[in-house]
Amino acid sequence: MPHDVHPLLLCGGSGTRLWPLSRKSYPKQFTKLTGDESLFQASARRLSGPGFAAPCVITGADYRFIVTEQLAAIEIAAAATLIEPQARNTGPAILAATLELHARAPGALMLVAPSDHVIPDAASFRAAVQAAIPAAEAGQLVTFGIRPDRAETGYGWLALSEKPNADFAPVAQPLKSFVEKPDAPTARDMLDGGTHLWNAGIFLFSTNAMMAAFEAYQPEMLRLVTEAVEAAEKDLGFLRLAADPWAECDDISIDYAVMEKADNLTVVPYGGVWSDLGGWDAVWRESGPDEAGVVTSGPSTAIECTGSLLRAEDGQQALVGIGLTDIIAVAMPDAVLVAHKDRAQDVKLAVAALRQQGAVQAETLPRDYRPWGWYESLVVGGRFQVKRIHVHPEAALSLQSHHHRSEHWIVVEGTARVTVDDEVKLVTENQSVYIPLGAVHRMENPGKVPMVLIEVQTGSYLGEDDIIRYEDLYARGRGAKG
Amino acid sequence: MPHDVHPLLLCGGSGTRLWPLSRKSYPKQFTKLTGDESLFQASARRLSGPGFAAPCVITGADYRFIVTEQLAAIEIAAAATLIEPQARNTGPAILAATLELHARAPGALMLVAPSDHVIPDAASFRAAVQAAIPAAEAGQLVTFGIRPDRAETGYGWLALSEKPNADFAPVAQPLKSFVEKPDAPTARDMLDGGTHLWNAGIFLFSTNAMMAAFEAYQPEMLRLVTEAVEAAEKDLGFLRLAADPWAECDDISIDYAVMEKADNLTVVPYGGVWSDLGGWDAVWRESGPDEAGVVTSGPSTAIECTGSLLRAEDGQQALVGIGLTDIIAVAMPDAVLVAHKDRAQDVKLAVAALRQQGAVQAETLPRDYRPWGWYESLVVGGRFQVKRIHVHPEAALSLQSHHHRSEHWIVVEGTARVTVDDEVKLVTENQSVYIPLGAVHRMENPGKVPMVLIEVQTGSYLGEDDIIRYEDLYARGRGAKG
Repeated sequence: MPHDVHPLLLCGGSGTRLWPLSRKSYPKQFTKLTGDESLFQASARRLSGPGFAAPCVITGADYRFIVTEQLAAIEIAAAATLIEPQARNTGPAILAATLELHARAPGALMLVAPSDHVIPDAASFRAAVQAAIPAAEAGQLVTFGIRPDRAETGYGWLALSEKPNADFAPVAQPLKSFVEKPDAPTARDMLDGGTHLWNAGIFLFSTNAMMAAFEAYQPEMLRLVTEAVEAAEKDLGFLRLAADPWAECDDISIDYAVMEKADNLTVVPYGGVWSDLGGWDAVWRESGPDEAGVVTSGPSTAIECTGSLLRAEDGQQALVGIGLTDIIAVAMPDAVLVAHKDRAQDVKLAVAALRQQGAVQAETLPRDYRPWGWYESLVVGGRFQVKRIHVHPEAALSLQSHHHRSEHWIVVEGTARVTVDDEVKLVTENQSVYIPLGAVHRMENPGKVPMVLIEVQTGSYLGEDDIIRYEDLYARGRGAKG
Repeated sequence: MPHDVHPLLLCGGSGTRLWPLSRKSYPKQFTKLTGDESLFQASARRLSGPGFAAPCVITGADYRFIVTEQLAAIEIAAAATLIEPQARNTGPAILAATLELHARAPGALMLVAPSDHVIPDAASFRAAVQAAIPAAEAGQLVTFGIRPDRAETGYGWLALSEKPNADFAPVAQPLKSFVEKPDAPTARDMLDGGTHLWNAGIFLFSTNAMMAAFEAYQPEMLRLVTEAVEAAEKDLGFLRLAADPWAECDDISIDYAVMEKADNLTVVPYGGVWSDLGGWDAVWRESGPDEAGVVTSGPSTAIECTGSLLRAEDGQQALVGIGLTDIIAVAMPDAVLVAHKDRAQDVKLAVAALRQQGAVQAETLPRDYRPWGWYESLVVGGRFQVKRIHVHPEAALSLQSHHHRSEHWIVVEGTARVTVDDEVKLVTENQSVYIPLGAVHRMENPGKVPMVLIEVQTGSYLGEDDIIRYEDLYARGRGAKG
């Protein structure tokens, strides 16, 4: 009976190449790019079930409640959720998770997986993981090698001594070397040669082996990350790594930090479909273009188009393309991207341009996620704003007051418990409450189903920072939002 | 001292070639395609001032309140607003307005102008109109000939006996003949020859001359339209043409009905800029492309694009184009068009496709215009809907009740007078009212400034047809909206 594998889901990324769907406030891994689940949810589900222990997650502070909500929605409980005080690339992140796991289960096997990749055939991927266990148990650092289907210059490659067998069965063999992102002729040669696979950044190892590798090649990082984990703060079920030692760590990938230096590397080939969805061109490719090379999603219509991707991300917004060739169009109510497909890698330029203009769309979505649920602004007028507020069962907003606005709350789904100064009362669907300017108030959902209310604010200043917070379940301070 | 000229603004059109900005519910002439005024407002303003009488307007019933609102906004009062019971092309429309004017001012001069054209240099256009007056007073039907700048196959042309003089001064000369939409070589020959001008559908004539032309060439239409005008119903200041005789009229343009048959035709050349904005390619052309051939409007950003038009119609929605060549992109919160510029004339295919899908975006905008103002839906949930309602000063919604919904009203601008069953009260900014299911209620704006309120509806059925109307300033019936 082999050991259970402990998945580590990496979800600290905030990529911009899939803007406007992916934004810093709600990045790619949490979006539903393909299918009904987010990439993160699909990754967690892929690495669950027999043979897998509960996953560990490492993410940024801004994403911790999205992680919680998305895992709850698919009924998977994380064994640990580590919060990075700041992004430090995969080297420190994987080490921190390794140390946390080692403390709970010394010598356990950890499978590191980015949470924003697409691997449609979960069963065959799980089989590859199972096939890698003996090597990992023997102290090897195992990397999974993806069968390449094009001369991709955007990926790192893995050089093998021998070709994988013809049916690409997951048979382990030693890794000869890593190959950095190649130029086009080199990529072509590697594709044709058959002894090179793509490096997907998916690894299996025992905590002992990874700790030994860091001890050998990154002793200073091992010291700092050990300190960050040991001094970590438990916070609402999250493990918040200590900021000072973390800040001192190099910002470096696991490949550079240890993998490219180690001599105990094994490759297990994976022959199934895999994509990192590294741009809209990849999304187009993986979404199954029709005979004309067209992919549509949502309420979008392609009229005499070829080689194009038309995505209407909101069910209420119609997108129509006419006579387009090799065009990417992604429509959202607050932002629209139209790009030539060959320029998919330049979508980051759009984000940079918007950031420079100070446009909120560069980084944030209209819907703002909070520990207690989410809200979105429906309309902003001269002296008023209307919000839709969604509160999870048993969640509560902070006890707060405002200097510059009054609020009308109308419950439209579920039941709220509302505090206004000394009064506490239940307010249910189709009932309303008035919060006068200056009143100390709180909104809670005491129920078992979500509570939705419409908030109409009126006043001369309606900024989120007009808030005095008296008590907060989520330990946030004055001026922090929600 | 010449006679005043009475403008007739034709605004019954509901063109689809500028979708999604132009929709049947709010067509092109009322939109702000160029500048801060709508095309209709710019047309009305162009034909106002010294030498012009108050305009006559002819439009469809759906547009009558838009006409009223847009004219009020620029402080122009119509002498008459004729309502066509159904669209019948320009022949019957111009005749009806001629008869109405003749009854008020026998023998007066009428200038017919489409209300969806762009003529930036109003002063020189007015000078051309002045130059045409002697011919019109002498009984001629005067048409204005636009200086062509390309071999356009989409327009009708006017054949002259002599070239206009070199500076294109507005010197009248007889019209030799009309030329139907030509093929490309013919258009090229006409452009090169210099004795052909574009027919813009702009005419000056005396009511006597036009009535005589209809008597000679369309006696049956003259009889029917005379009846439609004589039996017209006065309705809130509108003149609603009688439906039965109107329905019997041929659906025919003024060109086919009389102009191409008449022998008293004069042309006055017009050398200034003119465009009918007959498609997004024309909008691109008239909007002054930069060196790269790019036009942007609203919060839109072009990154390394050429020959493209990027329009973000809503101030809150960002549009970004990357690496585009000859692309039209028009973004609105509820609908987005992306088309190759060469396919601009196929935008009607988009509208047809959406209509077939039953998509509301084919014909209607989110904002719905009513006699009393407008409303828009902000969000629709399972059992609730939130609307923003804007009521003009001194306007009122009907006295009404609903079977399936309750309503919460929160006033956010101005003051409302609210009736709920037997109670009438004033409700001002930051106050709210609850309308229980079944209550007979009315919302009015008794003030001098617009009143805006947020309506939160809850109930199992939220359709606009759940309405029983008891009294209505605007004479609408049960189940009619608003």
